[in-house]
Amino acid sequence: MPRGLFVTIEGVDGSGKTTQASKLASWIGDQLGRRVLWTREPGGWGDDGIREMLLKGGWQGPYTETLLFLADRCEHCARVIGPALEEGRVVICERYQDSTLAYQAFGSGLGLEDLDRISSVLALPRPDVTIWLDLGPEEAALRLSSRGGMDAIESRGMDFFARVRDGYRVLWERDPSRIRRVPADGSPERVFELIKGELVRLLCP
Amino acid sequence: MPRGLFVTIEGVDGSGKTTQASKLASWIGDQLGRRVLWTREPGGWGDDGIREMLLKGGWQGPYTETLLFLADRCEHCARVIGPALEEGRVVICERYQDSTLAYQAFGSGLGLEDLDRISSVLALPRPDVTIWLDLGPEEAALRLSSRGGMDAIESRGMDFFARVRDGYRVLWERDPSRIRRVPADGSPERVFELIKGELVRLLCP
Repeated sequence: MPRGLFVTIEGVDGSGKTTQASKLASWIGDQLGRRVLWTREPGGWGDDGIREMLLKGGWQGPYTETLLFLADRCEHCARVIGPALEEGRVVICERYQDSTLAYQAFGSGLGLEDLDRISSVLALPRPDVTIWLDLGPEEAALRLSSRGGMDAIESRGMDFFARVRDGYRVLWERDPSRIRRVPADGSPERVFELIKGELVRLLCP
Repeated sequence: MPRGLFVTIEGVDGSGKTTQASKLASWIGDQLGRRVLWTREPGGWGDDGIREMLLKGGWQGPYTETLLFLADRCEHCARVIGPALEEGRVVICERYQDSTLAYQAFGSGLGLEDLDRISSVLALPRPDVTIWLDLGPEEAALRLSSRGGMDAIESRGMDFFARVRDGYRVLWERDPSRIRRVPADGSPERVFELIKGELVRLLCP
């Protein structure tokens, strides 16, 4: 059986990942007739223990949060993502390795090379394609405030999210064949057309 | 203020770590008059969230357990071990990095070089001296069964503990100036005399 296709959706809080993942799952499943698994990180493997700890926050060790995210990812890959890919499914995952790099290395100031070194040991599945929903931090904040979700930005500050966005740009520039930048400031329908344009050749060969 | 002294106590389950750490804390604190911090892993920083998850077990990702132990260690170092060393205390820690290497690399079969690579990124405090309480797995099992603590061995099997002990031997052989092997099959009093012999020059210069 052919290995499935591994698609990750990335971007800052408020960039529309869940909205677009939902549209993508419907399109691929209902219209293209492919078997889809739609999941997310952290916590996508069903046990909320690690996710709850991550939400609690307040870590003092520089790598504590990163290691918890990676532990969550290892379990997610072993239980959910890996088996689904082996069954030939299209896996759509909101947030994955690029979130750890953008948030921890660029947002929180850990070393990108250091995180790469840890990740290389873990040998997790590599996404076939990553959709980066690129949105400026001001526009993201506007969207989050309209849905009462400003906690994340208020607790970390706008500067943090500006650094995360810059981080996504660096990741995109170093791996443009995998990461596809999609401007996320249009309507959900317009953004989804751009995403389809990026994926159509992979999904309809 | 001079940095304190970092002492770790290692060995398989049943080798007498807690008994010896207790004697050591009394000796250093009461008789030598040094300020002591006695702690242990996992969970030594006061939040049992990660520790509870580790005890629950059942992980399917090859690195999940290791990453959780490392997250716990990062937090332990940031909150407890690092500050105590900066205050000039003698820190006695039951289990530390060598446990992760012996149990995960040798017991569970992860790569020692891979674990070293992750650890080098984390830059955690290095013990000044490590007491390895060396006990054969049969003798350890005998002791554990007498105190109703056979769960660990029954769930992992004797072979696992034999591999862990071999792992400690490899770690000792590659770093004999830090790791001091103490045969742990004598009486607690006899074993403690051996430990004092290993530490007296460091503690009473």
